[in-house]
Amino acid sequence: MAELQKSNKVFGGWNRRYAHKSEELGCTMNFSVFFPPAAESQKVPVVYFLSGLTCTDENVMTKSGIQRKAAEEGVAIIAPDTSPRGLNIPGESDSWDFGVGAGFYLNATQPTWKNWRMYDYITKELPSVLEKFEELDLSNAAIMGHSMGGHGALTLGLRNPQLYKSISAFSPICNPTQVPWGQKAFSGYLGDNQEEWKQYDATELVKAYNGPPRSILIDVGTKDDFLEKQLKPESFAKAAASQGGSSIKLQLRMQEDYDHSYFFISTFVADHLAHHANALKATS
Amino acid sequence: MAELQKSNKVFGGWNRRYAHKSEELGCTMNFSVFFPPAAESQKVPVVYFLSGLTCTDENVMTKSGIQRKAAEEGVAIIAPDTSPRGLNIPGESDSWDFGVGAGFYLNATQPTWKNWRMYDYITKELPSVLEKFEELDLSNAAIMGHSMGGHGALTLGLRNPQLYKSISAFSPICNPTQVPWGQKAFSGYLGDNQEEWKQYDATELVKAYNGPPRSILIDVGTKDDFLEKQLKPESFAKAAASQGGSSIKLQLRMQEDYDHSYFFISTFVADHLAHHANALKATS
Repeated sequence: MAELQKSNKVFGGWNRRYAHKSEELGCTMNFSVFFPPAAESQKVPVVYFLSGLTCTDENVMTKSGIQRKAAEEGVAIIAPDTSPRGLNIPGESDSWDFGVGAGFYLNATQPTWKNWRMYDYITKELPSVLEKFEELDLSNAAIMGHSMGGHGALTLGLRNPQLYKSISAFSPICNPTQVPWGQKAFSGYLGDNQEEWKQYDATELVKAYNGPPRSILIDVGTKDDFLEKQLKPESFAKAAASQGGSSIKLQLRMQEDYDHSYFFISTFVADHLAHHANALKATS
Repeated sequence: MAELQKSNKVFGGWNRRYAHKSEELGCTMNFSVFFPPAAESQKVPVVYFLSGLTCTDENVMTKSGIQRKAAEEGVAIIAPDTSPRGLNIPGESDSWDFGVGAGFYLNATQPTWKNWRMYDYITKELPSVLEKFEELDLSNAAIMGHSMGGHGALTLGLRNPQLYKSISAFSPICNPTQVPWGQKAFSGYLGDNQEEWKQYDATELVKAYNGPPRSILIDVGTKDDFLEKQLKPESFAKAAASQGGSSIKLQLRMQEDYDHSYFFISTFVADHLAHHANALKATS
């Protein structure tokens, strides 16, 4: 059961924050939902927004203005948190890019981090919690995210085409096995066997993708401080192209002078929702 | 001289934060400016946004999405801070509604708070600093604000029609001499002579207004927790109506189920900018 914590009217709909006890993660978790005005009279499609390092479920809801376009398109936004919280694992808050706020949307295998199971939390437990909301049509879902959450959207999306009909990302970590953020997280959560890392690397996944056709929208700012060292969208683009283009249609947009911030997200978030609404309408 | 602290591209324009030494306040102050894309090739009108209790110049820029409509209308947004900072006056941070973050856009007369001169700072010093920015047409300006900043927009706007061609407010403190927030601030900053308070009370000012015609847009949420105790928009509306309607045209909109938050502001901020752009275009 999810307990309502906060409720704010915005763009004619409702932004609501909930708390629930997660079995998967072994702690109380928050998530936020934007219910568009259309949800008052019908079931609406949902778009998951996975956030980046240090964020909670609230950042995208307070900073991106995503509700404006979601209200217009009649889609709900689901914003989960980015890791387990409050478990007091030694060292969990020592780094801003590992532990709390840095779940990387994977299932950890190392004993210390056994609660870090954000992959199963997002793909299984959270939808089962959301089923209680009659307004939401969870069978008609898309997934998007920012930075670490962009990595999450690409990897969860590519591995679960049956769950997510559309994928997009802002400034995603596209090839985590090859960059410092990913290497730190994957060695810590998954151990040293780098073969195991590949199941959480979007570039590896898109190479091997053989699911139904997916068009993926990615926006990256050319002045993003993390572009070269951490994001590597060109690796993903190259891997997607090597696919032959029959099942993956990638639209990678390099946005001039934009950076890694929510200012960037707010500017193009309406394009992303239009991308998803298009896929969700086509199948609803 | 204002020193650039941060610069982020957003909606095709630039959101920039500056620091400068304020003579008026005796401390270093930050302010933020959104330059719309049009500012690259011409002088643009400006809209001042005065923020509420506890806010800095950054809240409206990160939470309201104001840049989207400002880019479209070709107006710059000027967001000042809400009080002097860093002066270490005893007690300045004891309350969230007095002292730091709570300047109330007045010139204090009590010795302890002699640096609290936000009225002169906003109407005189800040414009003189902004004059260095060739992109800004400061002779073509409007003023708006939220809560304490809505009080600021109404009082500065009504007292200085030569500076501000248009006025609007979200959830403004409309009659501060009659409510706890205002009484605490005014007695602390201005002393016990309540006659002196009236120059900073929008309801008193609108009664006596005899300047050029002004249309004022005010939005207030019906679920605003501060509505009855602190805001009193009906007092302002009554005073404006008693004016006879020839010089003040008030549009007071009670927005059903909305509250005091930035979710509310983000929903209607585009309407406010359209209101201002209309007045600024008519006179530019």
